[in-house]
Amino acid sequence: MKDYISKDPWKIIENGFHPEFNKITESLCALGNGKMGLRGNFAESYSGETLQGTYFAGIYYPDKTKVGWWKNGYPEFFAKVLNACNWIGLKVFIGEEELDLHKCNILSFQRVLDMRQGTLQRSCTFTTANGHEISLNTERFCSFHDDEMGALKFNINAKNFSGKIKIESYLDFDIVNEDSNYDEKFWNESKISSAEVIYNEATTKKTNFHLGLALKTRVTHGGKQIKRSSIGQKEKYISEIFEFEYTTDTEVNIQKIIAANSSFYYAQTELESRAIEKCATAFDAGFEELKNSHVNAWSKKWDQSDIQIEGDVSAQQGIRFNIFHLNQTYSGKDDRLNIGPKGFTGEKYGGSTYWDTEAYCLPFYLSTADQEVGRNLLVYRFKHLTKAIENAQKLGFENGAALYPMVTIDGEECHNEWEITFEEIHRNGAIAYAIYNYINYTGDEAYLAEFGLEVLIGISRFWTERVNWSEAKQAYVMLGVTGPNEYENNVNNNWYTNYIAKWCLKYTIECIDKVRQSESNDWQKISTKVAFSEDEPNNWNKIIEKLYFPIDEEKGIFLQQDNFLDKEIIKVADLDPKHLPINQNWSWDRILRSCYIKQADVLQGLYFFEDHFDKETIRKNFDFYEPLTVHESSLSPCVHSVLANYLDKKEKAYEMYLRTSRLDIDDYNNDTEDGLHITSMAGTWISIVEGFGGMRVKDNHLHFAPKLPQNWESLSFTINFRSALIHIKIDQKEIYLENTNLCQ
Amino acid sequence: MKDYISKDPWKIIENGFHPEFNKITESLCALGNGKMGLRGNFAESYSGETLQGTYFAGIYYPDKTKVGWWKNGYPEFFAKVLNACNWIGLKVFIGEEELDLHKCNILSFQRVLDMRQGTLQRSCTFTTANGHEISLNTERFCSFHDDEMGALKFNINAKNFSGKIKIESYLDFDIVNEDSNYDEKFWNESKISSAEVIYNEATTKKTNFHLGLALKTRVTHGGKQIKRSSIGQKEKYISEIFEFEYTTDTEVNIQKIIAANSSFYYAQTELESRAIEKCATAFDAGFEELKNSHVNAWSKKWDQSDIQIEGDVSAQQGIRFNIFHLNQTYSGKDDRLNIGPKGFTGEKYGGSTYWDTEAYCLPFYLSTADQEVGRNLLVYRFKHLTKAIENAQKLGFENGAALYPMVTIDGEECHNEWEITFEEIHRNGAIAYAIYNYINYTGDEAYLAEFGLEVLIGISRFWTERVNWSEAKQAYVMLGVTGPNEYENNVNNNWYTNYIAKWCLKYTIECIDKVRQSESNDWQKISTKVAFSEDEPNNWNKIIEKLYFPIDEEKGIFLQQDNFLDKEIIKVADLDPKHLPINQNWSWDRILRSCYIKQADVLQGLYFFEDHFDKETIRKNFDFYEPLTVHESSLSPCVHSVLANYLDKKEKAYEMYLRTSRLDIDDYNNDTEDGLHITSMAGTWISIVEGFGGMRVKDNHLHFAPKLPQNWESLSFTINFRSALIHIKIDQKEIYLENTNLCQ
Repeated sequence: MKDYISKDPWKIIENGFHPEFNKITESLCALGNGKMGLRGNFAESYSGETLQGTYFAGIYYPDKTKVGWWKNGYPEFFAKVLNACNWIGLKVFIGEEELDLHKCNILSFQRVLDMRQGTLQRSCTFTTANGHEISLNTERFCSFHDDEMGALKFNINAKNFSGKIKIESYLDFDIVNEDSNYDEKFWNESKISSAEVIYNEATTKKTNFHLGLALKTRVTHGGKQIKRSSIGQKEKYISEIFEFEYTTDTEVNIQKIIAANSSFYYAQTELESRAIEKCATAFDAGFEELKNSHVNAWSKKWDQSDIQIEGDVSAQQGIRFNIFHLNQTYSGKDDRLNIGPKGFTGEKYGGSTYWDTEAYCLPFYLSTADQEVGRNLLVYRFKHLTKAIENAQKLGFENGAALYPMVTIDGEECHNEWEITFEEIHRNGAIAYAIYNYINYTGDEAYLAEFGLEVLIGISRFWTERVNWSEAKQAYVMLGVTGPNEYENNVNNNWYTNYIAKWCLKYTIECIDKVRQSESNDWQKISTKVAFSEDEPNNWNKIIEKLYFPIDEEKGIFLQQDNFLDKEIIKVADLDPKHLPINQNWSWDRILRSCYIKQADVLQGLYFFEDHFDKETIRKNFDFYEPLTVHESSLSPCVHSVLANYLDKKEKAYEMYLRTSRLDIDDYNNDTEDGLHITSMAGTWISIVEGFGGMRVKDNHLHFAPKLPQNWESLSFTINFRSALIHIKIDQKEIYLENTNLCQ
Repeated sequence: MKDYISKDPWKIIENGFHPEFNKITESLCALGNGKMGLRGNFAESYSGETLQGTYFAGIYYPDKTKVGWWKNGYPEFFAKVLNACNWIGLKVFIGEEELDLHKCNILSFQRVLDMRQGTLQRSCTFTTANGHEISLNTERFCSFHDDEMGALKFNINAKNFSGKIKIESYLDFDIVNEDSNYDEKFWNESKISSAEVIYNEATTKKTNFHLGLALKTRVTHGGKQIKRSSIGQKEKYISEIFEFEYTTDTEVNIQKIIAANSSFYYAQTELESRAIEKCATAFDAGFEELKNSHVNAWSKKWDQSDIQIEGDVSAQQGIRFNIFHLNQTYSGKDDRLNIGPKGFTGEKYGGSTYWDTEAYCLPFYLSTADQEVGRNLLVYRFKHLTKAIENAQKLGFENGAALYPMVTIDGEECHNEWEITFEEIHRNGAIAYAIYNYINYTGDEAYLAEFGLEVLIGISRFWTERVNWSEAKQAYVMLGVTGPNEYENNVNNNWYTNYIAKWCLKYTIECIDKVRQSESNDWQKISTKVAFSEDEPNNWNKIIEKLYFPIDEEKGIFLQQDNFLDKEIIKVADLDPKHLPINQNWSWDRILRSCYIKQADVLQGLYFFEDHFDKETIRKNFDFYEPLTVHESSLSPCVHSVLANYLDKKEKAYEMYLRTSRLDIDDYNNDTEDGLHITSMAGTWISIVEGFGGMRVKDNHLHFAPKLPQNWESLSFTINFRSALIHIKIDQKEIYLENTNLCQ
């Protein structure tokens, strides 16, 4: 656990430079606007530890699937969002000496992520190896107002130097992905031009995406504009070069304004002219005006989504940090995009979509954004339905059964471990549950006929073929699965998977009836399209009736899987702490055989379907499973925090909340340098709103059952519920609700 | 299935060239002598399909472990026996034209592996692109008399050509392994010299093995010796060059004599002088004398190990082919060597040792070679005991528990799939069983005190830690294993594994008692060395008494694993044949969930421990499991053939025998081009001797219960039993036994 970030309600502040944590700070200080993003790298060259990263949504490369032993059914490729053009880059030469903080003696340093404004600032003073004393002030943003724009301001002042300064402001596509084998590069040069605005366009290998960036740089020296001296050009690289005689102690101000667009959105032929035009217009408006509209956009976003915690600045900073990054990662404008586990903050997991979106992220976007945003997350999966059906076919399923991928960008499965790829099929359940969740929250029943029902039918058909009749049990069983607890593989009758499958079959029947009655024309179209047979619901009902669930009557618990109680049961608290985390200290063999649970599994089901069970059942299961849970997934504590609140276990609820809310700021898992845990951030939001706030939506009504931690004075948040913006404030005594629409 | 090899009792004959099957024929025609071997490649250059392969026992390279997602406990490297110096190589130029059969018009062609002599011959006539009519006769062997020697004879005659002929006779270490990533090479040049005898020595990267080969070439033209013209030299390559004026229709005779030795056996400093001296001496003796001693050595080997089948030439050829390659692969002289699944015939599986050795190969070597040979196979594992204990420690075991690797060359685990590496632990059982099997066969009880007991104790300690007490079952259980049937992964209570574990604990107690009584000094030493505690057998007895076994009372069968009967049970015979083999037609997911069995699992246990069960129990299990078995491992049919004979199922026994005996000759699995299935060849031997011959060793006596297939006139084989060479002949009516020692 690190503790170098200052506590502040609105800011992430690194006071004094911590080069040893630089990659962590770069992750924390990443900026994004849903369409593009970049890590908090320095603009100038830096030879110390850094992961230079710039990412554009939707632009991916299908890399080779890497396996030890190939299994039939493995995916063709592993799609990864590519590290792309570095557009903040500057090379600054003071005389002959290139500016590089790694080689300087730093006198003062502050890096500040201003979450209210969505800007990253840095001020520092230092002496170079040649003894020049320099002060530097810089600020940047990815425009939240216009998600194709970015801007950098870079002010520099040399106290004891006069002479030649050279500034090279560049766009560099000669980039290697961090995990690239043998330093293979995935970009080809496409087009480079250098008029008033310079332009660099590159193409991804294989997928042939075109991404073009236009740049115009303004350099002033003591307020006087410096003319561009020349153009620098190399393969996949272009720069504007400014050279001038510097007068000591005079400020140099550099502004980089860029516009980026790609063939993901526009015809390739348009890219250059569009980007250059947008860049030129924005350049004329200037950095400050661009910034103003950016900050205004953020202000509106905060009005919708902020959470205030009075009396606990650490918790306040934590939750705002999470909300900030969730909003940076996904704007909900485009139903072809989704939420990668690291957002725009790193390369791990390839920027792909997991079941995290449906199981953890959806509630945040439902409550803090327009209905369209949550809807687009669902439509993303609808658009991949054909590929999900093909994916199931590859594994031997028929008749329109759909298995959504575990990991994907464009609908193709990308994961390469059989125990996950083929067996962690509960993801299908989460995708169905998200449809229910969305409609339950928004009341948008029309979604069913338009998109949802086809998905539900595809998934229900999958469960139908995936179960088999057991003569021994005289019941349907689901063999060979991996549940949410990935510390078990290839188990039989995972209770959670069986439960969500059964629920899904029921819900699908219910939805079919609903659409059939209320939108009979639509139903005609759908049933023809999917070649629906009236026998199907009969078959589903048989499975619903006769699906097997492992339980232990004596303990009054659902069993995580068949024979779970054959394991040696020792609580985590009774383990010698030297064994923790077990994923670092134990062989995989030992983990699999142990009773230890990576993240909520049975309890995930009780969280989703709380209303289906009495409190005593939930309590018994919680009391049995939580003590066996090591919470070694970032997605684990939030669900436990909500359940603990529900069960009036206030201490456990707060303990679990602490484990999730400052995970990245405090680098709890020692991996923030790889990027932030974006999807678990939504879990933090859930643990506040559904946990401490006790919010539920039942029968088209909002319900609250708040239970505030003792050290919090108050908790406030805003909820967008069916077009009403409702502000909720909870203190230790009361709850205040305000429908802000009515107040306007 | 291919059918281009002529049926012959002693020979593998390719009549007419089949370039499309050339890699298959190269595998079939591989030669070896336990220390070195090579595929049946052409000596002259060949630009068609070929896998040029030359291998030396014990010379391996630790290549990178390749995995998708790293798991704790995975091995550091993957050891592979390296493709090494090509020593048969010749470049032959007729005028300007290099000889290359791929570019010639072939008039006649015959390639013959003479198994009685252990030689590979080829005669062919062809016209070159330039229209020269050439006849070629060549023969080679790896000396069975002196396993460091090899020789090639290559006679050539050109009908309508006079002019310059150039012959380059080379030693080439510039070799790439077939599975090498990015064509990485694993050999470095070490030493090259060129006196009367030329010498090429190279070193393996990382492991630093030195391998040196000396070569002397004799070329005659019309009986007149041609002087060497020059030496050719490149990196890792040296050659003798002969150039002369050729007179039409005059025979050119080339003889290559090589001697090879390595730092696996000798000091590196000795290698050059030893090899050169051996080569020079052998060269003076000449090809024919070398061949005579080689053929004599084979003749003795055949006296010990031949099987004759009268009335079925196809079966005769099959079994001889298997015996021939088993003898080529492993000579038993060196307890550091073992039996790779492909021997010297290809690169797949890296030349490593599997449990195949103990479970399938040992009986062949016990019966057909000196006692020392089988003993060395056991000592190989004894020498790896320390590494097996370290391997178990890596996985979290303590107290001297030993887990032998699934795949190894030098005792280090090399496999990289968790479901095999960590879970296929029954291999430990086979290693213990081999000790029992060896002592039961040979009566060599002294082996226990010398080597065997320490291994048994290490393995028993492993089982002790690997089981856990199940409160639910009130029994010890063994969770998370993979049985011999690798179409199941991570199952609980695999009956076979539990049974062999229990047997192993019992046998270890028995052996400790035996050694304690008869060799009390040795016992003192052993018990001190392994820090034996008298509590251990008590603990083992508890496990023996309370170990859980899944059974189905109603069906009267042992269950392959917990909940096996939850699967959908459909016999293989009732599957649409389009699904077979399932490992090519089904996703891994579907295979795992199915009831289909790759190779004997419960039945493997009933084969090993036949005496522990009544015939009715064996029959019920056979009748249940065999119909679910797809026999997609080459190791499967043999066990079923033996059991079928035991159960008087003559047709099934013969059907299973046919699946194993000509597997490679007929390329049954479409993979002979990768190399031969050496370890399953020992299974073929078992299915004849233990199956049709019905041989058993019980209470220090040989027993026979022969059941000859109807179309066989007679079956004869020779058994080395406790220093008596016993010849057995079985016909449809009687069995004849002859102790050949007594006849001498």
